[in-house]
Amino acid sequence: MSRIRAAITGVGSYVPDYVLTNQELSLMVDTSDEWITTRTGIKERRILREKGLGSSHMAIRAVENLLSKTNTNPREVDMLLCATVTPDYTFPATANIISAAVGMDHILSYDINAACSGFIYALTTAAQFVETGAYKKVVVVGVDKMSSIIDYSDRTTCVIFGDGAGAVLLEPDTEGFGLMDFKLHSDGTGCRYLHKKAGGSAYPVTMRNFLEQQHFVYQEGQAVFKFAVVNMAEVCYQIMQRNNLRPDDVQWLVPHQANKRIIDAAAERMGLPPERVMLNIHKYGNTTAATIPLCLSDYEHRLRRGDNLVVAAFGGGFTWGALYLKWKYDG
Amino acid sequence: MSRIRAAITGVGSYVPDYVLTNQELSLMVDTSDEWITTRTGIKERRILREKGLGSSHMAIRAVENLLSKTNTNPREVDMLLCATVTPDYTFPATANIISAAVGMDHILSYDINAACSGFIYALTTAAQFVETGAYKKVVVVGVDKMSSIIDYSDRTTCVIFGDGAGAVLLEPDTEGFGLMDFKLHSDGTGCRYLHKKAGGSAYPVTMRNFLEQQHFVYQEGQAVFKFAVVNMAEVCYQIMQRNNLRPDDVQWLVPHQANKRIIDAAAERMGLPPERVMLNIHKYGNTTAATIPLCLSDYEHRLRRGDNLVVAAFGGGFTWGALYLKWKYDG
Repeated sequence: MSRIRAAITGVGSYVPDYVLTNQELSLMVDTSDEWITTRTGIKERRILREKGLGSSHMAIRAVENLLSKTNTNPREVDMLLCATVTPDYTFPATANIISAAVGMDHILSYDINAACSGFIYALTTAAQFVETGAYKKVVVVGVDKMSSIIDYSDRTTCVIFGDGAGAVLLEPDTEGFGLMDFKLHSDGTGCRYLHKKAGGSAYPVTMRNFLEQQHFVYQEGQAVFKFAVVNMAEVCYQIMQRNNLRPDDVQWLVPHQANKRIIDAAAERMGLPPERVMLNIHKYGNTTAATIPLCLSDYEHRLRRGDNLVVAAFGGGFTWGALYLKWKYDG
Repeated sequence: MSRIRAAITGVGSYVPDYVLTNQELSLMVDTSDEWITTRTGIKERRILREKGLGSSHMAIRAVENLLSKTNTNPREVDMLLCATVTPDYTFPATANIISAAVGMDHILSYDINAACSGFIYALTTAAQFVETGAYKKVVVVGVDKMSSIIDYSDRTTCVIFGDGAGAVLLEPDTEGFGLMDFKLHSDGTGCRYLHKKAGGSAYPVTMRNFLEQQHFVYQEGQAVFKFAVVNMAEVCYQIMQRNNLRPDDVQWLVPHQANKRIIDAAAERMGLPPERVMLNIHKYGNTTAATIPLCLSDYEHRLRRGDNLVVAAFGGGFTWGALYLKWKYDG
């Protein structure tokens, strides 16, 4: 029997109904379908429009979808981690709200903030609890309601982001499947290029910073793009090297969906053809912590037991990294 | 050789200079030193007053204190977790800012939100990474600048909270010291009694909710007190039972410092006399994620190798739990 690893044994997802198209955005700000598509690869994104509904609304539905698909009793789940930069409230944690709503009674649950890399950070964290034998069934949710922190008069950011949620179930495996390796990084000097300035403890909300719209996402696109395009590709390459994976050994790259050109650069560095790269940015845009589980959900039916996946992300922090996963089941 | 456990090998802390006394508060709101002391045990609290300084300002100093005391090179640290409900920004994570500022280059770092239980949640999480062998040196920070989310015209909350930061170093141990057991819980139905409503994805900040001051901490004190006084005591008792610890076996209770009466109830349920209960609420009030490392820091000189510690917390979520730690070094 090999060592205990944490394997994904199911995937669930939820996106809101409302579709915000490039066409509609071009009526709101000075942009066009052609400009957005060429620069980002995005055609449309989903928006949770109803007032008073936060990230938990989507996350609860994604987790219910996961529990139903995997035939899992919520009372058997030991822990739930929620990766998000848009929690319902500053506190309590959105994970607490989700786990109570789906009937996971009094379990360990908390939120993780590592921006766009949140899901791979949370998955790695959950895997440690499984590997030590502490827990047998752990749910990891990635969710963001980016529309709650986007300025829809800023054409440089409002075209990029969308809302959505995805969730996976992790269980112990001793047959050689699961999380094989991880390589995760952060660099806080990236804060100046990508942040949400007001509303935290450094700049609590005031009338002035509210009117100056400092409570929205700020991004210096060029600087972030340059850092992302190099570092996401490099960490993917490094995790292949460290695990002796040649291009032919990797069935799928599962990349954070921030920008089609960043994804293409990673695939090229890895030597992977486009047909082995998961892509749904055209449908959802950048849903921050939700992109990777939404990809796994869309592509689940094509995944096969034994497939080698490289899962990679890059985002605010900066944070970035890659995982090597051996997939456990036929989708 | 026994199994690998994660042991605390050092403690650091930082509190801001400004002391806000009960006397000064009684000039701001309708309260008195006698009322506050009787109900909460708090005499004064520290406040980070300078504009533009967030939680990271305190956390960086606590981590620098830790690195200096333990003679640790920041480049040898593998991971930093930051428990907070008052991050500098919505994103990036405050952990990213801290680790970059102290010279921990490109390490895994992220924020954990489990409100007042954040530090014991983060410590347990960090311990998993040590137990699996993934990492050798992990820093866990608990920090909150509660003054950034408190309404200083609300006498029911402004007397309770304060600002501060504490940090511990975790390293592998095979001699039987470290984190022996944990029991952590959440119940999201507690959200209604203790939360910060506006500024998240459920209720993004608006002119209206700003003017209605919904961006401050809301607490139904009686409901929270009742839940806390029962559940923190009970989980302390349970962790003693599960580890066959009699009252005489426990050298220290390290309780979250929210209210002296909640602490007394836990000590009573455990059968511990007051002299074995760490207490500094009179100096700092409730610093949320920072209370426990601030206690460890204040009492470090009295801790002895082999001491059995029960570390317990309760807070927003609701979240609550207890750890059983075997202390590794003479303070």
